Amino acid sequence: MIKTDILIIGAGPTGLFTVFEAGLLQLKCHLIDALPQPGGQCAEIYPKKPIYDIPAFPEVLAGDLVDNLMEQIKAFQPGFTLGERADTIEKQDDGSFIVTTNKGTQHQAPVVAIAGGLGSFEPRKPALENLAHFEDNGIAYMIKDPEVYRDKRVVIAGGGDSALDWSIFLTDVAAEVTLIHRRNEFRGALDSVEKVQHLKDLGKINLITPAEVTGLLGDDSLSGVRVKKTGEDEAFDLECDSFIPLFGLSPKLGPIADWGLEIEKNAIKVNNALDYQTNIPGIYAIGDVNTYPGKLKLILCGFHEATLMCQSAYQRIHPDKRYVMKYTTVGGVTGFDGSKKEAPKAVVKAID
Amino acid sequence: MIKTDILIIGAGPTGLFTVFEAGLLQLKCHLIDALPQPGGQCAEIYPKKPIYDIPAFPEVLAGDLVDNLMEQIKAFQPGFTLGERADTIEKQDDGSFIVTTNKGTQHQAPVVAIAGGLGSFEPRKPALENLAHFEDNGIAYMIKDPEVYRDKRVVIAGGGDSALDWSIFLTDVAAEVTLIHRRNEFRGALDSVEKVQHLKDLGKINLITPAEVTGLLGDDSLSGVRVKKTGEDEAFDLECDSFIPLFGLSPKLGPIADWGLEIEKNAIKVNNALDYQTNIPGIYAIGDVNTYPGKLKLILCGFHEATLMCQSAYQRIHPDKRYVMKYTTVGGVTGFDGSKKEAPKAVVKAID
Ligand SMILES: Cc1cc2nc3c(=O)[nH]c(=O)nc-3n(C[C@H](O)[C@H](O)[C@H](O)COP(=O)(O)OP(=O)(O)OC[C@H]3O[C@@H](n4cnc5c(N)ncnc54)[C@H](O)[C@@H]3O)c2cc1C
Ligand SMILES: Cc1cc2nc3c(=O)[nH]c(=O)nc-3n(C[C@H](O)[C@H](O)[C@H](O)COP(=O)(O)OP(=O)(O)OC[C@H]3O[C@@H](n4cnc5c(N)ncnc54)[C@H](O)[C@@H]3O)c2cc1C
Repeated sequence: MIKTDILIIGAGPTGLFTVFEAGLLQLKCHLIDALPQPGGQCAEIYPKKPIYDIPAFPEVLAGDLVDNLMEQIKAFQPGFTLGERADTIEKQDDGSFIVTTNKGTQHQAPVVAIAGGLGSFEPRKPALENLAHFEDNGIAYMIKDPEVYRDKRVVIAGGGDSALDWSIFLTDVAAEVTLIHRRNEFRGALDSVEKVQHLKDLGKINLITPAEVTGLLGDDSLSGVRVKKTGEDEAFDLECDSFIPLFGLSPKLGPIADWGLEIEKNAIKVNNALDYQTNIPGIYAIGDVNTYPGKLKLILCGFHEATLMCQSAYQRIHPDKRYVMKYTTVGGVTGFDGSKKEAPKAVVKAID
Repeated sequence: MIKTDILIIGAGPTGLFTVFEAGLLQLKCHLIDALPQPGGQCAEIYPKKPIYDIPAFPEVLAGDLVDNLMEQIKAFQPGFTLGERADTIEKQDDGSFIVTTNKGTQHQAPVVAIAGGLGSFEPRKPALENLAHFEDNGIAYMIKDPEVYRDKRVVIAGGGDSALDWSIFLTDVAAEVTLIHRRNEFRGALDSVEKVQHLKDLGKINLITPAEVTGLLGDDSLSGVRVKKTGEDEAFDLECDSFIPLFGLSPKLGPIADWGLEIEKNAIKVNNALDYQTNIPGIYAIGDVNTYPGKLKLILCGFHEATLMCQSAYQRIHPDKRYVMKYTTVGGVTGFDGSKKEAPKAVVKAID
């Protein structure tokens, strides 16, 4: 059982910044995310695109924003349960909550902050026989650890940035990379399309287009895929160790919708006039996942909501303590790792 | 008469970021500030100190934060009335407001956003006879334009960062710089104290400590000050063109307190459950200057408040239009100066 002060569901920008604000209050956080990496939409959908409305950043790449947030929260040593979806929540007699993931990992905390964005990112899956049988047994929809593919024969399917970028990346890792797409045209950053063209010309990526995977081969684990080129009558079999269909991930509010929270327009209603708490005391909802009059689904709004929420969480966890806010410039930042950042002090010094 | 869409009182971080959010909605802004430079507390009180809790900045100097904001809003060409205090507000028959400063400058806008922080920064003045007579006539409490002192004989009084830093700066501009402080010890950044020591040793700063200015000399305009060294019986006269007492600026809510707004704990009450509007429709209060249940006087909160406020202002200014929010990453940023920032588009390209 993983125990923490604030259990955060969703490691998007809102969830990540919560770790910082909680840390200032000496509260520890643990994050659960269905994605294999932190960063939410920024990391999954548009890591290489610029954002222009993060305050004091005239321009910042979404991926850099996430890196900066990870750097900012490092000293507060957040825990992560990645690649797992928070599925159930149970209230305990002591008022705390136990949240269990689809893989059975259990987490306990007195406060739960749902920072689930548009929902848990779930892969679009191809309609293939025996698909479930091979899941985690040769088939994956996201790449958690590229080392798993070291010296393996990998087949990737898809025509967007993920398919392009992972094909490029895996040429340095896998024994063989095959990229299959149902059209000749790919849609992505110019740079990525050109790199794949180049690697194909060098023979490092085996490109099969226009084509589709129409069947899965193997007994216990995957041993190959059946491929049919458009316009050809016969399909053929291609031996491989892994098949990775990258058809995009789409967010689904999913199991959280059944936690007894008030839902409106696919989002969780909160009390924005106070502390972004839901109808269940102890459960907060912040960032894109919540709704209230005037709500804007913007990153900077999640930052504010997280900050106010942490103050309320502090009161809930320490009902007898009174927290007196200190500016970071004045009080510095003391990490759980023993680090201390602080402004250089003014000196009092005679001039003679 | 200066006319604009949103008249912002206070050019601190909150007021500055408002320009950006308004600009995204194609609304123009003009800012009034009592200080000679934009940036509010960050620029006036702690420009060289690091802030640690600006989201996605593990550390940023307050002065750099202001510079970044100025850069971010540049394309939206805000107007500035600096060094003047907004004193009165009058509602017009057409629903707009006219705001007049202590120097008589008039501004008209359908929406007023008060981003006045802890109030208008007012100088602490020395208790000297005829002080008011020489104000703007040899005596200044803030330096708006250092060029005014080119080849002049300047006397600065004070023992903190402003006195140190302006003494250093003006050695390159003025004919003569005298620094007077009632103690031998100065309080400021080590670097500044050491620089003053060095310039004094070089004879570029004429240091008189411990001492006080006890009188002002001159008829129409200032011609000198009377100085008394601690422990000595006789005061002496020192010829100069300018006397600049830098004893600190302290914020005072001031005239805004009489505008008919609901005030609580020296701050303006707003409706945080909706749009940060005050009890007077069309007047909003954002950033440190407002109060509501759970309010935190933090920079990141002002950013969020400004953003929501701009949406409401847009509805007020364009009651018939429906604004559909577009992410900056998707829609880009179109400046009033004709500039356009946008994310590189994805390509659709065959690989063969
Ligand atoms: C193309 C694009 C451009 C954008 N441009 C801008 C812009 O310019 N400016 C701006 O401010 N915003 C922009 N946005 C919106 C911005 O990305 C979101 O506001 C922001 O990501 C919200 O952050 P969040 O942390 O609340 O949620 P998210 O980033 O959505 O993160 C939520 C995370 O929670 C996880 N999760 C949800 N439910 C569960 C569960 N049950 N178990 C485990 N994990 C779960 C998800 O997998 C996800 O990783 C843009 C969005 C897109 C798609
Ligand atoms: C030493 C110190 C350290 C700090 N550290 C942090 C930190 O680490 N993190 C953090 O988030 N915050 C910190 N703060 C607080 C932060 O600076 C404020 O929250 C922030 O400046 C508020 O911004 P604002 O734009 O709302 O108001 P301000 O910065 O106060 O700006 C308001 C401006 O309005 C002007 N004004 C007011 N009334 C009038 C009028 N009638 N006419 C003309 N002009 C007027 C004032 O002159 C002023 O320039 C710190 C503050 C101090 C003093």
